[in-house]
Amino acid sequence: MLKQYFPILQWRKNYNKNTFNSDMIAAIIVTIMLIPQSLAYALLAGLPAQVGLYASILPLIAYSIFGSSSTLSVGPVAVISLMTAAAISSLGLESIADNVLAASVLALFSGIILLLMGLLKLGLLANLLSHPVISGFITAAGIIIAASQLQHLLGISTTGHNLYEILSSVLAQLETINVITLAMGLLALGLLWWVRRFLCQYLLKLGLNQSLAKNLAKAGPVLVIIITLLISYLLNLESLDVAVVGFIPTGLPALSMPEFDPDIIQPLISSAVLISIVGFVESVSVAQTLAAKRRERISPDQELIGLGVSNVASAFSGSFPVTGGFSRSVVNFDAGAKSPAAGAFAALGIALAALFLTPLIYFLPKASLAATIIIAVLSIIDFAVIKRTWQYSKPDFSAMLATIIMTLIAGIELGIISGVSLSILLYLYRTSKPHCAEVGLLEGSEHFRNTERHSVSTCPSILTLRIDESLYFANARYLEDKVYDLVARSPNIKHFILMCPAVNFIDASALESLEAINERLIDSHVTFHLSEVKGPVMDRLECSHFIEQLSGEIYMSQFDAWQALSTITAKSDR
Amino acid sequence: MLKQYFPILQWRKNYNKNTFNSDMIAAIIVTIMLIPQSLAYALLAGLPAQVGLYASILPLIAYSIFGSSSTLSVGPVAVISLMTAAAISSLGLESIADNVLAASVLALFSGIILLLMGLLKLGLLANLLSHPVISGFITAAGIIIAASQLQHLLGISTTGHNLYEILSSVLAQLETINVITLAMGLLALGLLWWVRRFLCQYLLKLGLNQSLAKNLAKAGPVLVIIITLLISYLLNLESLDVAVVGFIPTGLPALSMPEFDPDIIQPLISSAVLISIVGFVESVSVAQTLAAKRRERISPDQELIGLGVSNVASAFSGSFPVTGGFSRSVVNFDAGAKSPAAGAFAALGIALAALFLTPLIYFLPKASLAATIIIAVLSIIDFAVIKRTWQYSKPDFSAMLATIIMTLIAGIELGIISGVSLSILLYLYRTSKPHCAEVGLLEGSEHFRNTERHSVSTCPSILTLRIDESLYFANARYLEDKVYDLVARSPNIKHFILMCPAVNFIDASALESLEAINERLIDSHVTFHLSEVKGPVMDRLECSHFIEQLSGEIYMSQFDAWQALSTITAKSDR
Repeated sequence: MLKQYFPILQWRKNYNKNTFNSDMIAAIIVTIMLIPQSLAYALLAGLPAQVGLYASILPLIAYSIFGSSSTLSVGPVAVISLMTAAAISSLGLESIADNVLAASVLALFSGIILLLMGLLKLGLLANLLSHPVISGFITAAGIIIAASQLQHLLGISTTGHNLYEILSSVLAQLETINVITLAMGLLALGLLWWVRRFLCQYLLKLGLNQSLAKNLAKAGPVLVIIITLLISYLLNLESLDVAVVGFIPTGLPALSMPEFDPDIIQPLISSAVLISIVGFVESVSVAQTLAAKRRERISPDQELIGLGVSNVASAFSGSFPVTGGFSRSVVNFDAGAKSPAAGAFAALGIALAALFLTPLIYFLPKASLAATIIIAVLSIIDFAVIKRTWQYSKPDFSAMLATIIMTLIAGIELGIISGVSLSILLYLYRTSKPHCAEVGLLEGSEHFRNTERHSVSTCPSILTLRIDESLYFANARYLEDKVYDLVARSPNIKHFILMCPAVNFIDASALESLEAINERLIDSHVTFHLSEVKGPVMDRLECSHFIEQLSGEIYMSQFDAWQALSTITAKSDR
Repeated sequence: MLKQYFPILQWRKNYNKNTFNSDMIAAIIVTIMLIPQSLAYALLAGLPAQVGLYASILPLIAYSIFGSSSTLSVGPVAVISLMTAAAISSLGLESIADNVLAASVLALFSGIILLLMGLLKLGLLANLLSHPVISGFITAAGIIIAASQLQHLLGISTTGHNLYEILSSVLAQLETINVITLAMGLLALGLLWWVRRFLCQYLLKLGLNQSLAKNLAKAGPVLVIIITLLISYLLNLESLDVAVVGFIPTGLPALSMPEFDPDIIQPLISSAVLISIVGFVESVSVAQTLAAKRRERISPDQELIGLGVSNVASAFSGSFPVTGGFSRSVVNFDAGAKSPAAGAFAALGIALAALFLTPLIYFLPKASLAATIIIAVLSIIDFAVIKRTWQYSKPDFSAMLATIIMTLIAGIELGIISGVSLSILLYLYRTSKPHCAEVGLLEGSEHFRNTERHSVSTCPSILTLRIDESLYFANARYLEDKVYDLVARSPNIKHFILMCPAVNFIDASALESLEAINERLIDSHVTFHLSEVKGPVMDRLECSHFIEQLSGEIYMSQFDAWQALSTITAKSDR
């Protein structure tokens, strides 16, 4: 029981010097990567830079105790930071301190929601987000994030949470661009792009071995940060109005439960629900992908608990919502992390950075951090999947497109809500007009096939309809209409058989429709039969009065029905 | 084309003296029934009594031109009147005139929405309302309506739109009850109950023939109205503070497009959508039930147009939303209405009443009208269906219960929204954990059956999983988990076959899961095959790269797969 909720009790038993060494190396690489990312995502969320560091200490330790993935790296991520920014700014708070407080309240709510979902085993709520909706959302959110960083590249200050608002805010200020900031931003972008594309190859040419070159290349972005930091320091760019990170208080966060005004509970709750579900889906997909590569299993319900505790820890650190991030988890995995302890070690690294490193990054241009974010999010935008979805399925494509368009023009929360609603409605629509076929006997066999596709024998007094979908409220009326139409067009039939090999359940609405069909057919002097009803469906039907009322029989197989009814007909025809 | 949108062009051809006579008799009976109902429902909607008469003139004529049902009787109905009251009162308007204007704007919006749904063929949106949700909603709405009429029986004035608010408002005023009003109300209730239960039997005993007795009994409530009206007049109850209907302006409504403040558009739109859908569902169920009894067909999309034009006509008459009502349509049907012309004749009857009859009902106690409403709604409350649903299906029951509870405690709009959302979520949940079975060959046949239920032969190197549900976003992850678990537990297998006889489609999310399964099985040196893939599903798969990537084959039948793979295994085993 205890082990179920504390995975650490499992893996600590096999912990040894080898695992420790692997974890330590991975932790160092992840720490180097996490420092600029944490600062950048705090800025994206509209919060002071140090808050990003705080979000990367306690939450990582909490996850290493409660999380079920050995390689997931928890912390601030781009999409969740953007959602945080949107949620906080809707409150219209004035001071920075109030915004930080609101962000930590959001983390607290999100943590509590995730914990509740975990305890109630509601991990499957994440199933409501289809792949096309998720990838559409991530693409659109990536575009908005990149657009929102333009202000830092251009040295201006924009507002807005959808593409139109952001871009028009940028256009209105084009005359006040700071050219030196832009130059630094472009330099950082160019260097980051080069690092991502060519650093690994370059290191290999220098004669380094494969894995060392790969790991060094992963830490490349830090090199870019250091280069731009040095340029900024040496040329004293701050005196030329280039925005720099500036003074960051040294030290660790004071731990306390965020105290808040009850008035902000209601507006933050729905944002917290969305942040929880989106964060969980992102995190669990990363965790499952990585676990699969090592033949490991993660437990989605335990992941909810791990992420829930991490967010509560973030709230107590006065920081903002966190989740498992894609790029840093991949780095952690590639660098050889063997257990969740790697995350705890990385947390120690960040804590050291918060204690000693912050004075050194005073001169870091915000444009460099913006460039880091832009390169990171552009890599998650995937246009190929849009094309593939278009080719495979138009309904899925339309759900994806609705998500992208609504996210870009109406903001991220409405975007994801419309995508989910549309994909559910399209699924209901799909099942509301199920495939049906009139079937006949394939000569010399016991199989029944579609009369329109195969040469089959039919009997003039029997009409058999095979329905290829479970019967429920959305298609109950369709079934009634279909049966009435068929019977009206076949005045000579005496038996109507509904063949149900693909009917996995019949809900109360569909049962009422079957009862209505039965009564209607009795009035038309047609006997109503069912065939090939599955066991669980039959069990349910026995709890109703339908079987007593049914004018005909329920046959195990369609062939049984055929033999029984075509004989009777033959006799009565004599 | 024209005939499609104007059903009148069809039926007028066969119109003759017989049809005219039948329609005329039905119209007279319906008119007598409609007068008190129209007044009562206007009061229920919180509007002056004459507005109810206006809602029963032009809308009926409009429906007789555009409607597709020959017996549906359109006009004010209980549930829609209650929804109108809730929508208008949320605007917090002061004057009666403003409330009437808001009600007609609501009718206008509702008419436009219905027309748009009809032109876009969106009648199937009504399928989202499952039977348990509808009957739960009607039961709960009936209870609220009955509770809201207590004020008129007790001679007090209550507020509130949910059961708790209404009852606590009643309890707070228990000391100010008007005893004479209560006595009149109880008298009316008792008489109405007697009429409903015993009048027909009594008339039969008097020697009247069956059909005359039945029709007279239907008009019985009017007798009760007349009796209480006479008592009120003779004893001058108005002077004893008994609320009476009072002065009703004589004459027909002035026709005009309602002019309104743009500020009320937004709050009324969502109410108009709900009123449209609920009204449409109620109306179409009645129309279909009655049409079925006469072997007629109605067209749901044309019904949308008929109801849409009726509501626009109601708006232009300065009245409130209308729809097809259950009790009066049954009366119309039983009285022998043969064509929609019966509705137009009833409209003439109501118009005459509005012109000449209103001064006569000055002294009618409002308590009599309240008693009419209470008796009408109590007859639509159906507790038996609640019990039946509980026995047949717990998920359906829980959706019904949620609708009832939410309607009673949170009001009718939230009630129906929660019911619909819950029934959709429960359906998704049901299909998110589809039934799966490991199958083997039934000896001496070509059939494959569940290994746990039947004695079947299996092959140690082949594992076949039959999945009994379409594959889509909500169950894609479940499928992956299921396959990985099975394969992990069977280390010796070389072939994994997914048998898809009940898979009616595979969406983009499920396709990605199949691709993931394929890759994962390749890594585990297991070949992945599909069998019994249906034609339409196969057509879709051919638009993707899945078939190229698939490590194994796609077999027409599971028996083919078995023969091919068990042979190969046998050879390689040698």
